[in-house]
Formats: sequence, structure tokens, C-alpha cells
Amino acid sequence: MKIKHKDLVLLLSEDNKTYLLRVEEGKDFHSNRGIIKLDDTVGLEYGDSVSSSLDNKFILLEPTIEDRMMKVKRQTQIIYPKDASMILLKASIGAGSRVIETGLGSGALSIALANAVAPTGKLYTYERREDFIENARKNIEEAGLGDCVEYNLSDAKDGFKEEGVDAVMLDLPSPWDGIKSAYKALRGGGRLISLSPTVNQIEEAVDHLENEGFVFIETFETIQRHYLVRRGKTRPIDRIIGHTGFLTIARKANK
Amino acid sequence: MKIKHKDLVLLLSEDNKTYLLRVEEGKDFHSNRGIIKLDDTVGLEYGDSVSSSLDNKFILLEPTIEDRMMKVKRQTQIIYPKDASMILLKASIGAGSRVIETGLGSGALSIALANAVAPTGKLYTYERREDFIENARKNIEEAGLGDCVEYNLSDAKDGFKEEGVDAVMLDLPSPWDGIKSAYKALRGGGRLISLSPTVNQIEEAVDHLENEGFVFIETFETIQRHYLVRRGKTRPIDRIIGHTGFLTIARKANK
Amino acid sequence: MKIKHKDLVLLLSEDNKTYLLRVEEGKDFHSNRGIIKLDDTVGLEYGDSVSSSLDNKFILLEPTIEDRMMKVKRQTQIIYPKDASMILLKASIGAGSRVIETGLGSGALSIALANAVAPTGKLYTYERREDFIENARKNIEEAGLGDCVEYNLSDAKDGFKEEGVDAVMLDLPSPWDGIKSAYKALRGGGRLISLSPTVNQIEEAVDHLENEGFVFIETFETIQRHYLVRRGKTRPIDRIIGHTGFLTIARKANK
Amino acid sequence: MKIKHKDLVLLLSEDNKTYLLRVEEGKDFHSNRGIIKLDDTVGLEYGDSVSSSLDNKFILLEPTIEDRMMKVKRQTQIIYPKDASMILLKASIGAGSRVIETGLGSGALSIALANAVAPTGKLYTYERREDFIENARKNIEEAGLGDCVEYNLSDAKDGFKEEGVDAVMLDLPSPWDGIKSAYKALRGGGRLISLSPTVNQIEEAVDHLENEGFVFIETFETIQRHYLVRRGKTRPIDRIIGHTGFLTIARKANK
Repeated sequence: MKIKHKDLVLLLSEDNKTYLLRVEEGKDFHSNRGIIKLDDTVGLEYGDSVSSSLDNKFILLEPTIEDRMMKVKRQTQIIYPKDASMILLKASIGAGSRVIETGLGSGALSIALANAVAPTGKLYTYERREDFIENARKNIEEAGLGDCVEYNLSDAKDGFKEEGVDAVMLDLPSPWDGIKSAYKALRGGGRLISLSPTVNQIEEAVDHLENEGFVFIETFETIQRHYLVRRGKTRPIDRIIGHTGFLTIARKANK
Repeated sequence: MKIKHKDLVLLLSEDNKTYLLRVEEGKDFHSNRGIIKLDDTVGLEYGDSVSSSLDNKFILLEPTIEDRMMKVKRQTQIIYPKDASMILLKASIGAGSRVIETGLGSGALSIALANAVAPTGKLYTYERREDFIENARKNIEEAGLGDCVEYNLSDAKDGFKEEGVDAVMLDLPSPWDGIKSAYKALRGGGRLISLSPTVNQIEEAVDHLENEGFVFIETFETIQRHYLVRRGKTRPIDRIIGHTGFLTIARKANK
Repeated sequence: MKIKHKDLVLLLSEDNKTYLLRVEEGKDFHSNRGIIKLDDTVGLEYGDSVSSSLDNKFILLEPTIEDRMMKVKRQTQIIYPKDASMILLKASIGAGSRVIETGLGSGALSIALANAVAPTGKLYTYERREDFIENARKNIEEAGLGDCVEYNLSDAKDGFKEEGVDAVMLDLPSPWDGIKSAYKALRGGGRLISLSPTVNQIEEAVDHLENEGFVFIETFETIQRHYLVRRGKTRPIDRIIGHTGFLTIARKANK
Repeated sequence: MKIKHKDLVLLLSEDNKTYLLRVEEGKDFHSNRGIIKLDDTVGLEYGDSVSSSLDNKFILLEPTIEDRMMKVKRQTQIIYPKDASMILLKASIGAGSRVIETGLGSGALSIALANAVAPTGKLYTYERREDFIENARKNIEEAGLGDCVEYNLSDAKDGFKEEGVDAVMLDLPSPWDGIKSAYKALRGGGRLISLSPTVNQIEEAVDHLENEGFVFIETFETIQRHYLVRRGKTRPIDRIIGHTGFLTIARKANK
């Protein structure tokens, strides 16, 4: 599978920095480690290397979903891979799933969701800020996942157009604003997921979920701890992301 | 989408316990909360309820991937959803991916992997203990994911038959035994993942990965902390799984 | 410093179990690893060993403060060493300090506090349940720290008799019940510490502290993770105490 | 207890910043919130306030041991209060204890140790770098704890002069260099504590401890997580210190 024009590649420098870019005809990539003519990468394979004008080596890697999430242009705090991966598994989102997401933020989670439901499923996004939709749409399309995503400029409170969806993801300051709408849109047994930074939000959300007819409600946070692994000097890394948010998962029981 | 014979359902009792079972014609489900005739669930939908002989309500839920992983018959320690979900995202495993997994254990991770690559991808498993393959195969088929899984009674050290795969997952006491074989089987840019409980294993594995030509090597652990969420009494849960294992992820650079 | 009658010793068995006991004349210590005549330990030194009737070795250790805390007879959940040690340091409690503690619980924290203020300081305890006082007093005296502790059968809400104390420790279901009383009892710059299991309690307590004139308010939890350290097989221990409580520390500003 | 010349005070500004300083006659304190004539604080009490030249309020607090540790002039990484407090409790260090510490670093831990053993105990420090001793000594004296500390310009490997001490604290790149010396210096049942950042150090140290005759060996790390507590918006703080070091504690058994 050779690299061709318009492909996304992740350049890895010798000092372990990564750059996500698209192989545009006639374009150069500039960094403090030298220039790479992107046309020179065409015909190579992922895993191959190129040399920059300063004779530094860059390895051409295939961008993973995580790479594409982390490299979005950010207008908002993004949802991190550690949380996105739990959302996918807990809500059992896979090829063919029909999923609603609101708010849209910068589209980082959308990339993970769209990738998971592709090619036969659909991601329906709802966001009330037009500038967020614009930026997120660019990010999602840049990640090559635009095909199965729909955008609605609308508030969760005003309801969703879809019915019988498999999962609804709420990333809202007041998640309870979307709970009634989510209940209506979900099929029986469908999953609702809510991500919130504060304890008060989860307390309020869980209360609403119980009243609305959701069951098997679970709340947790996920902490990731990286290690510096070097022969004879292995230890946890000093800095850690202390908190992103709490995830609440629930399933719809029919009334 | 009505429940029919042979479907998998997750029964949720009023005390929040779950039971995963297949709707076999003429069979009953027995618990201390009474008996349910499984035939009575046919024609209902996920989200609906049934009453047991003791008049206790059970809600019929659609089993998620996590439910199916956690309910496997265990002959070994299983890989937990918190780790499985990170494996899927970090290794960018999705519909159509071709993935090798060794050892097979009880097949819990295989369920998550097979579900992710389905319907067009393939999971190639390698395991040297026949009894493990037998048990895992039953678990995977019971979870409804047998179609895209192949089984090899063989040791990672002896190499893999496949070439150009997208990802190789190593769950071995000596992960370095599988690293050379993985390098050969992977396509350029493909991902290797290794899960190990001890620090010494990751130190040794990372050393081998660096020597073998893997790049962008990363090691971390994932900790999940559940919360008891009740109006005015919200707090982290007392008990926590303190440790499962460290995940190491690397990508193949071509030589 | 030879062991003599009435001394406290910690017996350590070969399977790493510990037993805290007092060397009573003519008494025996019984365990499934055999009997030890306590008189035989008299004249030995800490660090020496004795053999049981079944020829198992026990090492005689000097009980640390932690040993004495963990071995109290429990009528309540106790405050753990990981939290007690932070209380002592954050509240700057040392020889000569005058400290109020309420409620008393089983007296585990009192042992740490009394040990820290001894010999010239004083620990004033307030507890509204007589049976708790009785049990805690026995535990504290058994730990050899009775001299500098006073007991009051009284509720925090009704105020404390002392003035100008260095620190007040609140371990109450409604910590705000003790905040006004604590403010009155503390000298300027004195420290208030409150331990609570729920997030709601700390939110309410911090609110009251701010209104009452406390400053430099800080809330945190302390998590301890033990490791199984064995050459070539080192890893975090599977089980961990997931949560005990949140500590809030504040200092009194004068009005 | 009125503030007088030469006293240490902790100034707390309205934006919750703290400044540790000594009330020197005729001196001013300068900050971007204005100037305070230190003579104006004389005669006030801890908990009282002063106004700066820019009319900003500063509260005069009594420096805790933690304040004094955190404000040392650093030539090295310091040992944090969360670890220092566990060292004190686990090693049962209190008034009258005789303790050896090596290396000395910037003296932050020494401040906690000296404070704990004062007034009747003694802290014997060993450090092979003269510049570290100089800086640490200044820090310890500035904290008002110089009286019970002795300094030795010497390496742990070369042994300690003292005998029968209660505890030995090792903060060395190769803690095993100090283990034989520590065994000789400790009395039976005495505690050895070692702090190390890497897993390999603890593995090696525990091996040496077992061979040397230490028992009841325990290794753990302590993680502290702060919370932002505000009515309706309470959550863990984003940033956290991911790792300082692992603590190993052991007790001397006699041979």
C-alpha cells in the first residue's frame, strides 16, 4: 500500500516528535530539523524513512485514530483518547452503529465515533455554536472521516430528529438538558454516555437518569499513567493529567 | 428489533445483578429471585421487562461487548475492558483490520478484537495450549463473534503465518519471544501491543522492541475508579482494582 | 534496652504476620504456629527472636505508632496511617502542641496525635457516645499513650472548653457542626482539619470555613499504592484501598 | 503570643500566595501587591492582618513544618511533605528519637525530621558534597531547627559514627551503599527507610535488605490528589505530581 498524493501521513522525527500532514502535490514540510519535499514520500510505504534538507531522518507512519484525535485544531478542550476508548467500548459502538453526539466541541471524539461506526453506520452531531461546527467539520474531514457524519445546528434541549439510535453521547455543561431528548431518540437497551468535569454534574445527571427510566447506571473516571522505560532506570513519568472528567453510562429501559 | 430464539440477552435484576444468556427454546432461567421461561422473552424488545415466578422484574438488555467479555468462562486471568479499549484505540483496530493475537487466554480480549475487525477483517489467534483454545473458542462463539477468528495451536516463537497485518497483540509471559515474529508479520507502520503485569517484563520488552526496529514506543497503565453517586452522598468507591498490567505500544519502522 | 514485663512487643512470624501484645507475667501467646511463653522474652532486646513450641521463629519488634494504630479494637472505621500522617504534618502538630479531636471513633488517630504532642502537649477529645470513649480510652492506654489525653462526653456543636489551641481535628458526619466551636477554640493561625468520605461534605464544610473566617483552605486525598518487590517480578499489588476520605485543612484568621 | 523581631512569619496574600520571611528590624517586604514594613507586624498575633503600601491585605500566619519544607532554597529535588509525613509515621520518629539521614539534599526532609525529634532527640546527617551541606544547613537554621542537627561530610558507604539509633533514612542513588552501614548503626528493631525514584533501585535495595537481615520490608508510593472545592463546581485539580519516589521501609532483626 504505497503512499500517494492526498494521503495522510504522520512524520516521526528522531527526537520522537510527530507531525500529521496531508501529502499535497508540490508542497514542502518545514521544521527546525529541515525541509521535506512531500512529493518525495509518494511511492514509499508506511514505515519507510525520508531525509530532510538538514539530513535528519523522518519515519512515515500511518496515522492512528488517536493521532488524528490529538492533532485536531482545538477551539475547545478535547475529549482524550483514554476517555474516548472507554466510551466506544462501554456503549458498544461498532461498525453500523447509529450514534448521536452533542456538543460537538472540536470534533476529536467525533473522529473516534465516526471511525467506529464506518462505513455503514452514522454519527449525528448536534451543536448550537456554528463556529464550533465549522471547525469540527474541518477537523473531521481532514481526518478522512467526513462521510458518515451529519451536522445539526441545534440545542440538545430541543430534541433530536433521529429515532431508535444505538447510543447518545452527551458532552454538555448541563447534561440533564439532553437526557429527555436522548431517551426519546434511543432504542430500548440503547446506551447514554455523559462526560462531565465536576462531581456536581454527575450527581445531578444520575438523578435525572434514574427519574427518566435509565438503568444500570455507572460512573467512573479513567486515569492513565505513563512510564519512562529505560534499562535500569524505569519509573512513572513525573507529570500526569490529573483529571479530565467523569464518565456516566446508562441504558434505556422501556416504559 | 424483536428478541427471538438464539439471541443473547442480558438480564438485569432489581438489585442490579446481570446474567448473560442465550434464549434457548423451552429453557428456563433460574435465580434466587425466581424462574423466567425464556420463551416468554421472544417477541419482546431490548429494554422491555419480564416478571419471574417470584414476581421479580428483570429488564432485558442487549449485551454490550463489555458484557460479553466479562461473562466468559475463565480458565485464565482475563484482559479487562479498561485495557482492551486502549488496545483498540492505540492500535487503531477497526472494521477490516487484520490482527494477530497471542496468547489467547480465555478469549475475552479476542471478543473485543473480533468485534472491532468484523465483518470484513480477521483475527488470527496463536496459543500453545489446546485446552485454552477450546475454552476460548467456545467463549468467542457464544459471544456471537466466531466468524472472523482463526485459531492456531502454536507458539509465538515459531512465527506467524500471516504477512502485512495491521496489528499484533502479545499477551505472553516473555513478550520478547513474540517480537521478532511480530516484526515479520506486520506491515510497515503496523502496531505491536504488549500487556505485562511486571515492570521487569516491560523493561525487557522495550529493549527488544528498540533493537528490532520498532519506534514511537510508549508504556502506560490505565486505572479506573468508580464512584458511588447518590444525591448528597457521592464518593469514590472503597474498592478498586489496583493493578492489571502495563501496556506497551510500538510501531514498525521498515529496515 | 531490654524487654521487661508490661512492655508492648510486636511479634513477627515467618509468614510475615504481626501480633501486638503486652508481656504479662506468666502469660502465653497462642497461634497456629505454636505457643510462646511471654516470660521467655524478658531480658531479650527488640530485634531478637524466640522459638515457639512448634519450633517456629518469631522476631520481637518494637511497635511503631502505625502498629499501635492498626491494632486497636475497632468499634468504628478507623483513620488510616496515610491520612493520620498528613494530618500531623499539615497541621504542624508536634511535641507540646495542644490539640482538640472530635469525634473520637476507636482512638486510632488519637494514638498518633497523643504520641506527637507528648510529653508536654495535650490532646483534648470530644465524643458524644460513651461506649466509643470507653473503647477508645482502652485502646489509647493499651498503646501506652494515656497520659496526655483528656476525654469529654460532649458534642462538638456545644463548644470546646479549651482556648488558644494549636489545632482542631474534626471527624464528624456534619463537620460544619464543629466549625464555629473550632474557630473559638483555636488561636490565630491555628489549623483546622476535617476528614470526610463524601464530596458533598467537603463542599459544605469549605463553604462554612470560608464564611467563618478560615483561610488558605486546601482539600486533597491521599492514595497509597503498595508494590510486590521481587527480583525480576516487581509490580504494583492487585488490591488497593480505593478511598478513605478527603482531608480539608484551613487556618484561622483573626476577625 | 505576639510576633516579635526575628520571628518567622508566613504572609498570605489575597490571591492565596504565601511568602515565608523573618521579621528583621527595619526591613521591608516587597511584592507586586505593595510593600510591608516588617516592623509593623511586631506586636501583632498570628492570624492578624497588615495592609501593604498599595492597600492590599496580607494575613500573618504561623509557618507550619510543611511551609518551612516547601520554602527551602533548593539545590536539589526535595522530598515532598506527602513522603516526609509517611517517613515519620512509618519509622515512628518522635520526640527524643535519634535518627541518621543521608544524603542531605537541600535539607527539606531534615526540617521535618529535626522538628519531630526535637527537643531531646538528634538528627545526624551525612552528605558527601560540601556545597549541599552548606545550603541545607542554612535552610535548616533558617527554619529554626538547627539545634538538634549534626553534619558529617562523608559518604554512607564509609559508615556512620553513631550506634543504637532509632531510624536511618537513605536518599541515595545507590541506596544499597548505605544498607550495611545502616544495619550497624541501628538498634534491634530500628527502622530503615529508603526513597528512590526508579523501580530498579527498589528491587536492588530490597534484595540487599533481605540479605543483610532486615525484616517486615514494605514498599509503596504515595499519591496526593488535590480538589478544587467550590459550591456546585467541585472537581479534582487538573495537574498532579505524577511521581516522586517509592518508599521502602524495613526493620532490623538481630543476627
